[in-house]
Amino acid sequence: MGNIIKGPSTRELMQQLASESEGMTVNDRRDFLRKGIAAVGGMAAATVAGGVSAADSMINTGNLPPNEPSWGRMLGHGVIEYPYGQPSKFESHVVRRTVPWLTAESISSISMTPLHELKGIITPNGLVFERYHGGVPTINPEEHRLIIHGLVERPLIFTMEDLMRFPSVSVIKFLECPANGGMEWRGTQMEALQFTHGMLSCCEWTGVPLKVLLEEAGVKPEGKWVLAEGADGAHMSRSIPLEKCLDDALIVYAQNGEMLRPEQGYPVRLMNPGWEGNTSIKWLRRLEVGDKPWYHREETSKYTDLMADGRARKFTFVQECNSVITSPCPENPIKGSGMIEIEGIAWSGRGKIKQVDISFDGGVSWTPANLKGLVLEKALTRFSLVTKWDGQPWLLQARAIDETGYVQPTLKQLREVRGVESIYHKNAIHTWQVSNTGEVKNVQVS
Amino acid sequence: MGNIIKGPSTRELMQQLASESEGMTVNDRRDFLRKGIAAVGGMAAATVAGGVSAADSMINTGNLPPNEPSWGRMLGHGVIEYPYGQPSKFESHVVRRTVPWLTAESISSISMTPLHELKGIITPNGLVFERYHGGVPTINPEEHRLIIHGLVERPLIFTMEDLMRFPSVSVIKFLECPANGGMEWRGTQMEALQFTHGMLSCCEWTGVPLKVLLEEAGVKPEGKWVLAEGADGAHMSRSIPLEKCLDDALIVYAQNGEMLRPEQGYPVRLMNPGWEGNTSIKWLRRLEVGDKPWYHREETSKYTDLMADGRARKFTFVQECNSVITSPCPENPIKGSGMIEIEGIAWSGRGKIKQVDISFDGGVSWTPANLKGLVLEKALTRFSLVTKWDGQPWLLQARAIDETGYVQPTLKQLREVRGVESIYHKNAIHTWQVSNTGEVKNVQVS
Repeated sequence: MGNIIKGPSTRELMQQLASESEGMTVNDRRDFLRKGIAAVGGMAAATVAGGVSAADSMINTGNLPPNEPSWGRMLGHGVIEYPYGQPSKFESHVVRRTVPWLTAESISSISMTPLHELKGIITPNGLVFERYHGGVPTINPEEHRLIIHGLVERPLIFTMEDLMRFPSVSVIKFLECPANGGMEWRGTQMEALQFTHGMLSCCEWTGVPLKVLLEEAGVKPEGKWVLAEGADGAHMSRSIPLEKCLDDALIVYAQNGEMLRPEQGYPVRLMNPGWEGNTSIKWLRRLEVGDKPWYHREETSKYTDLMADGRARKFTFVQECNSVITSPCPENPIKGSGMIEIEGIAWSGRGKIKQVDISFDGGVSWTPANLKGLVLEKALTRFSLVTKWDGQPWLLQARAIDETGYVQPTLKQLREVRGVESIYHKNAIHTWQVSNTGEVKNVQVS
Repeated sequence: MGNIIKGPSTRELMQQLASESEGMTVNDRRDFLRKGIAAVGGMAAATVAGGVSAADSMINTGNLPPNEPSWGRMLGHGVIEYPYGQPSKFESHVVRRTVPWLTAESISSISMTPLHELKGIITPNGLVFERYHGGVPTINPEEHRLIIHGLVERPLIFTMEDLMRFPSVSVIKFLECPANGGMEWRGTQMEALQFTHGMLSCCEWTGVPLKVLLEEAGVKPEGKWVLAEGADGAHMSRSIPLEKCLDDALIVYAQNGEMLRPEQGYPVRLMNPGWEGNTSIKWLRRLEVGDKPWYHREETSKYTDLMADGRARKFTFVQECNSVITSPCPENPIKGSGMIEIEGIAWSGRGKIKQVDISFDGGVSWTPANLKGLVLEKALTRFSLVTKWDGQPWLLQARAIDETGYVQPTLKQLREVRGVESIYHKNAIHTWQVSNTGEVKNVQVS
């Protein structure tokens, strides 16, 4: 072991480390991250000849450095305290948040995913956004049933055990409320990514293709629509075209490996990949096959798009191609000049993301970003562009293009078609204004 | 709305539903699931002519059926009660479990993932298996530092902010303790999948390639190994060949979208994809570049493979190709004859899974299974075979083959090479004995 290391001793490294954490200033020498990484080279040079091997001193646990943090000088808690794991107490700020004035009652409200804190494409179950119309019911899965009836040869009742015995499929898909960013149609500026885009999550969902269950029941030739209805107090319901039910709709009981969370429809929900979230009826108890849509409460008074001429578009199911930059954003300002990674998420209800471009000048010029990690159909896709920031102000935008060739529109383009009275389906290019101090504001550019 | 539906009324469906949940027997008429789905056809036929439209009666909320479950007759809880989401109380049995006799102290112990309850390939963070050697430390991320030193041009200290400013990558990879199933080398039979294979999880991990950080520090030509050391009280450490550090090793700070859980190394850990879990040092505080391995405590007394001749193999890093059937399994017996999906997971530390075969007769004959969902490198891969069970006893096995052509060995083959004294790297074909009542036992076949 004698000659393996000639470097600063662990004691000295730890002393520097402790000084560091007490706010000691160190020289910024690195090119890549101009502010940040502390080089201990100077100290190392002075001690390199006579320094004790770091490995040696660490093997001898009787020789712990004096500034060892408390957690390195004691044992942690044991295994039995954790029946179901929780995030660190230092992450208690990473939670779903609601906007109190958005809805009159908390039982018919929304909580939003902290997109600015998330990495990768999976949203952990504890942070998946919530939207419900009569509160979260507490459903005993052994007593829950799913009925398929109406224009079918064989009406059926399924227990959860029945449903879970069918061969299952697992898919990673985004889920988005069509009201995401809807406050901005008329110009309201929410000063946080969590509030502009946080009605959006992405999970691995497991269940049975609805097609399989409908084949079991035998849809009659005149069957063209399916009413999906929840078991909650609101009995939320939507009319779904049979075509979607026979395409990629799933009867889902698990998210990210475990059973659905209560607020996500436990024990079973419908999942219409790529479609507005409210059609993916939670706490699903009933599927009725009919020959035309039902025009229920939540597809007439809500979830239609009021146009400038006073008429309403209905059954606008697809969440069109969209994107947003998650770093920087209002909650993630740029902390000092140098190289930074501009990062974000893109998604399309019509398939895969093909391309994302970044603009620094409010849409005048565009630079292609890289798609990183998995690029899956109707799932969040991460994009990235590594660049340098030296205090210049930016009007930062991302523009996504999906595999159908659809290009995410500007807000001006959307308003030309849709007016400003709508609540839903605002998928316009979003603008972050970066100031010369690195702070980020939500602005609209014409 | 008048003529859209002619079916059983919701009231009648709900009455049958309520009777069902009180244990009323219904005729089993379905071919696909011989036991299970209740057909309401008989009742439907009797009521189809005069039945009230189900949709009509549901729109009129004053006309709720008398047997509506309680959760459909009241409002649920509102949005503010859920700062960080939790599973349903009906899923409280889905937790990590420990084997009390396995270790002397809970601070140096293991809790295992309930694989029999999981779907898809993502393990939710609350259920990722735990293994630590001095308890779980409570680390303040603002005070934590990562040091890179030893045979480098520029020793460096990183804050978490430094690390998280580097461009990140996100990858879905399995993590497995090499002791998974280790009790079985000498023939101990654990009667639960959670205990035979539960030191295994799969997450989306986000961090910085270690290669990038080592390039910042500048590894000297004589640098060949890297010591990784934890900040926990055990200061767990392992020697990692430089080659792996420059290949796919990551400095990871997030799992499944959110920051690492405390028991997974919060705020930062090493991740060596495909390698035995203990090399992916948690609570990472120090990386030291040297010219040979350190032969520390946890790579001499532990994590070596004792062979029949009394010598120990060391640095056996790779988790070789493995698989197990998760349904049926001891916790998931077959509940009645008919069609069933035999399902399981396969994984290889060398790359992608290429093929999985199923045997019903203890390895005499084999049938190819389907790989379903995503097939990713060094990640869990789901396999599936839909078949029929009519009470015949089975010796059920899965055998995985990875993209390198490596075929998962039998236990006999492994023992011929390795003896029975080892604790680690038991990746033998596993056998579930299915009795004529559908119960499943863990057995070893020669």
